Amino acid sequence: MPRVVDHAERRATLAEAAATLIADAGLDAAGLRQVARAGAVTTGAVLHYFDSKEALLDAAYAAVMARLAVRQQSGPALDGLDTAALVAHIASFLPVDDKALRDWRVWLAFSARALVDPRFAAQHRAAYARITAALAADLSELPNAAALADALVALIDGLAIRIMLEPGDWPPARVEAVLMTFVRL
Amino acid sequence: MPRVVDHAERRATLAEAAATLIADAGLDAAGLRQVARAGAVTTGAVLHYFDSKEALLDAAYAAVMARLAVRQQSGPALDGLDTAALVAHIASFLPVDDKALRDWRVWLAFSARALVDPRFAAQHRAAYARITAALAADLSELPNAAALADALVALIDGLAIRIMLEPGDWPPARVEAVLMTFVRL
Repeated sequence: MPRVVDHAERRATLAEAAATLIADAGLDAAGLRQVARAGAVTTGAVLHYFDSKEALLDAAYAAVMARLAVRQQSGPALDGLDTAALVAHIASFLPVDDKALRDWRVWLAFSARALVDPRFAAQHRAAYARITAALAADLSELPNAAALADALVALIDGLAIRIMLEPGDWPPARVEAVLMTFVRL
Repeated sequence: MPRVVDHAERRATLAEAAATLIADAGLDAAGLRQVARAGAVTTGAVLHYFDSKEALLDAAYAAVMARLAVRQQSGPALDGLDTAALVAHIASFLPVDDKALRDWRVWLAFSARALVDPRFAAQHRAAYARITAALAADLSELPNAAALADALVALIDGLAIRIMLEPGDWPPARVEAVLMTFVRL
């Protein structure tokens, strides 16, 4: 079904264009016209793939959250690692390269918007339920797996904000020292 | 010097009016006209106390960050507490009442805006340097006090976001279980 594939691909491409605009300049920079321009299509073409600006933003947010979740689930089981490997693995969840940084910037923009927009709060809630359930499964041999998963997610989110807003102040050694306080549990 | 006091008081009142508007509806809701209306003054009167909208937002952000910092510094020294008292004290940093929730919502709005506005990034950086230095001083009997302070701040920030965006999903027992994973270090 090539047309179905094309449709899904084009939707994904436009959602990524929106995500890049949001990462660069905030949610207000991802209007239909700007996304159309970034995707080298007309506004009408964007509206062929998405019913509304809201649907486009939903798709951009969903794509970013799916990627952040995969990053936290693509490694080995957390409880099978030695301390150094565990710290390195957890550090890899953070905005440590340009692609991850872009996704984390979009995450923060939507997190703030979710305070005043229930649609995005619902998306946040569903994504976090998936992420913490997967981490808790990774840690399931520990008696407090659910609390450890919640703590790890909170620690990563809080660190991500500081790394983004204080570039240059967070060399790998500082990140590792913080993660060591968690890993030594 | 009553006039000086009045001036400072009026500035503080208007900054708080801006903070309330931001907490309720986001940064875009805190324009000069809206703040003037909330403070029952004219836009010209607002501009008498603040040179610009940016100066007003700076003051709102500074007031909120100062209050969040005080909340984290007003308790007993962290290393002098037993486990239950320590968990209760750390939990009190979080958005656990309406006043704290208002400040945390403003914090998240400015954190996202700081991604694209260097003024607010600079304010964030200075406020966090103060907060983590104070926490590290509280923990100074421990060998890794700086890393523990960074970890605690990150954990609190990450938890605050989830508590705000998932109201109803974070009863005190869940918060305490997460903080226990930190306190058991």
